[in-house]
Amino acid sequence: MAANFRSDNETPVAPQVWARLEEANQGTAWAYAEDQWSERLDEAFSELFETKTRVMPIATGTAANAIALATVSPPWGTVFCHRDAHIYCDESGAPEFYGNGLRLVPVHGEHGKITPGPLADAIHASEGHGVHSYVPAALSVTQSTESGTVYELAELEALYQVALAKGISTHMDGARFGNAVAALGCSPADTSWRSGAQMLSFGASKNGCMAAEALLFFEHHELLETAERHRKRSGHLLSKMRYVSAQLLAYIENGLWLDLARHANQQAAVFASAVEAHPEAQLEFPVGANEVFVRWSAQGLEQLASKDIQFHLWPGHDDLARFVFGHSTTDEETSLLIDAMGG
Amino acid sequence: MAANFRSDNETPVAPQVWARLEEANQGTAWAYAEDQWSERLDEAFSELFETKTRVMPIATGTAANAIALATVSPPWGTVFCHRDAHIYCDESGAPEFYGNGLRLVPVHGEHGKITPGPLADAIHASEGHGVHSYVPAALSVTQSTESGTVYELAELEALYQVALAKGISTHMDGARFGNAVAALGCSPADTSWRSGAQMLSFGASKNGCMAAEALLFFEHHELLETAERHRKRSGHLLSKMRYVSAQLLAYIENGLWLDLARHANQQAAVFASAVEAHPEAQLEFPVGANEVFVRWSAQGLEQLASKDIQFHLWPGHDDLARFVFGHSTTDEETSLLIDAMGG
Amino acid sequence: MAANFRSDNETPVAPQVWARLEEANQGTAWAYAEDQWSERLDEAFSELFETKTRVMPIATGTAANAIALATVSPPWGTVFCHRDAHIYCDESGAPEFYGNGLRLVPVHGEHGKITPGPLADAIHASEGHGVHSYVPAALSVTQSTESGTVYELAELEALYQVALAKGISTHMDGARFGNAVAALGCSPADTSWRSGAQMLSFGASKNGCMAAEALLFFEHHELLETAERHRKRSGHLLSKMRYVSAQLLAYIENGLWLDLARHANQQAAVFASAVEAHPEAQLEFPVGANEVFVRWSAQGLEQLASKDIQFHLWPGHDDLARFVFGHSTTDEETSLLIDAMGG
Amino acid sequence: MAANFRSDNETPVAPQVWARLEEANQGTAWAYAEDQWSERLDEAFSELFETKTRVMPIATGTAANAIALATVSPPWGTVFCHRDAHIYCDESGAPEFYGNGLRLVPVHGEHGKITPGPLADAIHASEGHGVHSYVPAALSVTQSTESGTVYELAELEALYQVALAKGISTHMDGARFGNAVAALGCSPADTSWRSGAQMLSFGASKNGCMAAEALLFFEHHELLETAERHRKRSGHLLSKMRYVSAQLLAYIENGLWLDLARHANQQAAVFASAVEAHPEAQLEFPVGANEVFVRWSAQGLEQLASKDIQFHLWPGHDDLARFVFGHSTTDEETSLLIDAMGG
Repeated sequence: MAANFRSDNETPVAPQVWARLEEANQGTAWAYAEDQWSERLDEAFSELFETKTRVMPIATGTAANAIALATVSPPWGTVFCHRDAHIYCDESGAPEFYGNGLRLVPVHGEHGKITPGPLADAIHASEGHGVHSYVPAALSVTQSTESGTVYELAELEALYQVALAKGISTHMDGARFGNAVAALGCSPADTSWRSGAQMLSFGASKNGCMAAEALLFFEHHELLETAERHRKRSGHLLSKMRYVSAQLLAYIENGLWLDLARHANQQAAVFASAVEAHPEAQLEFPVGANEVFVRWSAQGLEQLASKDIQFHLWPGHDDLARFVFGHSTTDEETSLLIDAMGG
Repeated sequence: MAANFRSDNETPVAPQVWARLEEANQGTAWAYAEDQWSERLDEAFSELFETKTRVMPIATGTAANAIALATVSPPWGTVFCHRDAHIYCDESGAPEFYGNGLRLVPVHGEHGKITPGPLADAIHASEGHGVHSYVPAALSVTQSTESGTVYELAELEALYQVALAKGISTHMDGARFGNAVAALGCSPADTSWRSGAQMLSFGASKNGCMAAEALLFFEHHELLETAERHRKRSGHLLSKMRYVSAQLLAYIENGLWLDLARHANQQAAVFASAVEAHPEAQLEFPVGANEVFVRWSAQGLEQLASKDIQFHLWPGHDDLARFVFGHSTTDEETSLLIDAMGG
Repeated sequence: MAANFRSDNETPVAPQVWARLEEANQGTAWAYAEDQWSERLDEAFSELFETKTRVMPIATGTAANAIALATVSPPWGTVFCHRDAHIYCDESGAPEFYGNGLRLVPVHGEHGKITPGPLADAIHASEGHGVHSYVPAALSVTQSTESGTVYELAELEALYQVALAKGISTHMDGARFGNAVAALGCSPADTSWRSGAQMLSFGASKNGCMAAEALLFFEHHELLETAERHRKRSGHLLSKMRYVSAQLLAYIENGLWLDLARHANQQAAVFASAVEAHPEAQLEFPVGANEVFVRWSAQGLEQLASKDIQFHLWPGHDDLARFVFGHSTTDEETSLLIDAMGG
Repeated sequence: MAANFRSDNETPVAPQVWARLEEANQGTAWAYAEDQWSERLDEAFSELFETKTRVMPIATGTAANAIALATVSPPWGTVFCHRDAHIYCDESGAPEFYGNGLRLVPVHGEHGKITPGPLADAIHASEGHGVHSYVPAALSVTQSTESGTVYELAELEALYQVALAKGISTHMDGARFGNAVAALGCSPADTSWRSGAQMLSFGASKNGCMAAEALLFFEHHELLETAERHRKRSGHLLSKMRYVSAQLLAYIENGLWLDLARHANQQAAVFASAVEAHPEAQLEFPVGANEVFVRWSAQGLEQLASKDIQFHLWPGHDDLARFVFGHSTTDEETSLLIDAMGG
């Protein structure tokens, strides 16, 4: 029996979401997001986030991120992000494409987190000299981070404050937003707009949906119109948007998203404890959500892989592996992994 | 009871496709099109089209079209299409966006069809003078057309021949390809590559799927690599691509796609006969597939709408309406429409 | 002795402009348009145009046009122009490039002129349906036209009024603006902003300068900032801008530009009279400025070419030729041409 | 009397270049680089560089650089350069604009120089994982550097070798190429293609011309065609290109360019010696060409500025100044500067 810890992108759709998809599949529904599910999104997310929120459903987080940034940055604007950020490392230039040549400026920081000092330095260094230079335009923060860590609310606030004080826009890449909220035990509002994020790429695909994300605007609601132009122009306005929107509604109603995320986080925590107790392997980063990075010998990792345990070696490393736990990861699978590691 | 003839984009997913989606939803599957469903696409489509075919699954036809054109045209290339083509009228500049400013040149023609003479004239007029001008790059033909007509094989061949003789690339927008093939009773190969199309945007969303299209390369298979770069960079490489690919497989296996299309075409034919017999209303175009354009008095159309019959007035007209029949249109609905028109 | 009537782009720099260039070539001058010549442009053009005018000097008309349009149109905006317009036929997609995929919509019209009816129709046809379509964004009118004709003031006003009533921006491509003003005998203000143009690409290269144009903003002066970003980002902010600006100052001071243009127009008029009197050749268009289009037999034109008379056959024609008269065209050259035509 | 050491961009045109411009200003000449001067460029540069060279004249170095990079990199390609490179810091995203979102990856290195180790690391770190990542596409090296230093031939070779071994394209930004060649005393071939550069932005504007640069292709000559498309499309194909080409011919004939550069370098050397002897001020970088960076107290620099000595404080610093010496800098001006510094 194999167990797959490669990515939460590889999990199936949660049963509750599937049920809602089936309901949405009855009869005809108006196309291009004029269906009853899509039309309920603004209200449902406004309630969830305790503030007026405008919602753009979309199939992928890459598109949500790129459109968010293109909406607030001119082509000659810089966007600051962690050097390990998905937008910098894994989107093949989607922000640059949608943003017509905007520039990402990666900022270094331990454990996948940007800190205020280096951010302020990076902004300062990017202020340039008039038309010769890019202008600072936006900050994008990933929560939970690419290293599986979670920003504390105070950390987020401090970070966004640096950006807002400079008058630049603020975005959160929430591909694993549910895992972060579940981990912090705070409200979704606390770790998004109350911390200073003006826009949120709210991810659902990794945590129980099929292909469903939402770009949320907490402020500057008029930007939604520009974002929707980008969505259409890039071919992301699905004709049958009802299926995306129905997923999103199922996902956020009755706290399903947090239940799913908590489960994934809990599996990760169990594994993290096992790693801590392991005689050779070590945690590379503090485990905050549903991803566990393990530093181990190349030999150890190879043997693990040979036991039908699936995971990713970190690009460029043979002694660093990532294990991701999803809403569908079972206790048995986690035990299988722990047993396979031995120790 | 309402009956919806607005668009086949508003139909639900066909049961057979849904069943396959459910099967695909078991357990984990590798992300980013490395799943077992995606990996079978090349073979399945090669068999269906009786030639080696490389397949790029994608969620929307707009993205498939734009990527196809951007893959074969330089930024300074022109793409010829009918002036009513979806790529010209309904994609908000997706080809121009993906193609970094390529230019669409609309060609006029009756009944939604381009004919060889005007196409040759348009190409000739676009040949320009060296670096000062765009260069002819591609021809995109829609089958079935935006007017609900269907190109005969000889018409298609003559058209593509004009392009190929000039050395420009050939594309077919097959958003309703199934309806065309069902109407012609030919093989899919006949109305695509055997007629001269090098690339096909193979549509499935309108005819039984949720959000599933495929860009097919019949020749120049190496272009797939460039196309995949565009797909990723635009955020169209779904992490859970299995769900798109599973739809496509279900759709083409056992001739489901043609069964669904034939049903829709048949409903359209019944309605078209009723319009022909109507004392006032008239068919605007010959009815070739599943769309029926009706010229009637504004008053007549208004009364029809008041009877819970849903349809689109053609933009800019109050006496021209489009009725689209889908795989899920029932005999009852078609009868309801015919009765509501009176006559 | 050869005589060159190919293009006013092939004329040398006028002595008065040259003298000013020499003056500007003394010692150092601050770079990037912070020199004393560049800094006088706003004032000098404001005086010439009798209204507050902001000026962006630039080396080519193609860049001036493309930046003007990119400054006022979103990527999903349409720009209306004559189907023979330089921006449509001769700039290899510069507007589309700078405008990130904006779309040009060519409008037909006799003698190189757009008329209000077809313009209104084109705008109406481009209004589309929400996010699916481009939005009307700007009108660009060429004065004098590509056919060598000149819009009367009333014609211009009527045309711009159609655009302004729709809330779209207005631009004039004045590559041969001097020839038009000289021909009309009006003030530069009359045939630009008083007729409704918000932006003017003021051409000087064809009429006595080396490489000197200016993009003028009569309204919405704040747009200059965006235009300057485009100028820098495209590599058009010359470090030694003093040489462009000095040309422009020399060109507009003391009416030099109109003297030069009147001379060119006069030569054209002499030739036009000869054509009218010619037994075989005919004027293709009314001659309004410094360009004369002659319809003659292919044989006649070939013989003319064999007599060292240089001119352009119109692309795609062997019996239509364009003769352009410049500030440096001499009476002898014009006589040589007339004699060579015989008649 | 003021003395200007702000930039060699602020120097006038050298008399020998001016004389050639005057010669070129006689009568008409065919437009768009079909004149006799432009047509001699390939031969003249091929001779100068001792290898077949194809030449694209253009008005600015920013455009030359951006077009070079866009010609060899796909939109999803990375270009490596020094973190102080003009293309990264001073061109407002021109490479990203022309390159449709290509990405610059800045590499750190002392004294404005990239070294092989960090370059190899940066390339390795950019190799990524398939379609998710950018692909390494080009290396751009600035000679002489932004710090006024000059790469030795062995340094250049080692650097380009890293790139070529990885199969990526090689470019040299030679905005001050003449100063570098003059300093090294080598042939232009040695410090360009013989060291591994496939393309060179050959600068002339800073060293005696008005607005004249050339993009040179030493290999892959067919790329010139693509580059010329970019030049046209961006509005950089001057109609009266003869004036740019005439400057270039004057500049390279009879070694003028090296005479001018040697003069500038010599002035810089005299000043550098004075700084070394100064009790407080210090050279920030080894002085290799015509730029001298001086670290001094803010107070010292302020006093210098108050004595009509013009120079640039380095952005973000009040105790670091750059002094640039040009072909037109006189012994008197240099003495004035040295005297003003006291010491």
